[in-house]
Amino acid sequence: MEIYFITHNPSKFEEALELAESLKMAIQWKNIEYEEPQEDTLEIIAKKSCERILEKHSELSDFVFFLEDAGLFIDSLNGFPGPYSSYVYKTLGNEGILKLMEEKETRSAFFKSIVAFYSNEEIKLYKGITKGEITLSKQGQGGFGFDPIFKPDKCDQTFAEMTLTTKNLYSHRQKSLRELFTSLTV
Amino acid sequence: MEIYFITHNPSKFEEALELAESLKMAIQWKNIEYEEPQEDTLEIIAKKSCERILEKHSELSDFVFFLEDAGLFIDSLNGFPGPYSSYVYKTLGNEGILKLMEEKETRSAFFKSIVAFYSNEEIKLYKGITKGEITLSKQGQGGFGFDPIFKPDKCDQTFAEMTLTTKNLYSHRQKSLRELFTSLTV
Repeated sequence: MEIYFITHNPSKFEEALELAESLKMAIQWKNIEYEEPQEDTLEIIAKKSCERILEKHSELSDFVFFLEDAGLFIDSLNGFPGPYSSYVYKTLGNEGILKLMEEKETRSAFFKSIVAFYSNEEIKLYKGITKGEITLSKQGQGGFGFDPIFKPDKCDQTFAEMTLTTKNLYSHRQKSLRELFTSLTV
Repeated sequence: MEIYFITHNPSKFEEALELAESLKMAIQWKNIEYEEPQEDTLEIIAKKSCERILEKHSELSDFVFFLEDAGLFIDSLNGFPGPYSSYVYKTLGNEGILKLMEEKETRSAFFKSIVAFYSNEEIKLYKGITKGEITLSKQGQGGFGFDPIFKPDKCDQTFAEMTLTTKNLYSHRQKSLRELFTSLTV
């Protein structure tokens, strides 16, 4: 069975490939641009994106493929920036989030990753969540996006301060991908 | 020629109807839900939404219809909240925007409305822009969304302090709709 990961982000593909190989699985990269709908949950966005791909590329309906979408959800901001994390990162950056968090009593937040997997005319969703908190200032140079201001629970480092190997132990995306991959090897 | 305004917002339809009637035009309401794509400009969102409606409702390709999308663009926030204004309003509210604007040197912003009009296998876009600034605090009870913190240039009231008749003199949506309607009556 050939499994395609549909993404145009090479780093995402590499991260998934490394995990797949460690589980003795093979995945292949399919670099297709697809439209994400504006919806308030990652689950609906991932599912509809899958459906959209199948509408546009009917040849894929005989294949097995998945895609992934993720976001940062901050409790005291009603889940903002959530599904719009990349737009918010581009416009407000980490500084904007830190500004919004001033005087907030709780700084709890979580990263969520949703994998939508298509096989046999069915779409299944796999979820990975990493709970943590928004730090008081940016810490670390690694990672990308909101990594410098997110510290997972029971850690004393932000995602941006960790090595990639350490980050992968905590990463929401590793969790959702692992859910998917282990379901396939059973 | 029958012209449909596709929206599921009755207030938007009423606003358009009033303007249309003042110009001796007739429009009809078509309450169809449609998916908006995640894109960084209103222009692309409106155009793709039109295309999406035509894909899903092929019977509409023989009709003449339009839809409208709008957002608030704040210069010192790199255009945020822009196309995601309704999500940002729901999560951060006016308080969130005022917080982000603390210590900003310029408070200039604009509301933009884009109308996408479909007729004869062609989609045309019409634009309405109202320039102004973000106030230091909320003012007024009327309107909706970001109206209490937006004061158009050369006005001493926010949108939320104006009567509907006064607001319509300045409104970005009235401008884009007027552009469309007058193009049709020539």
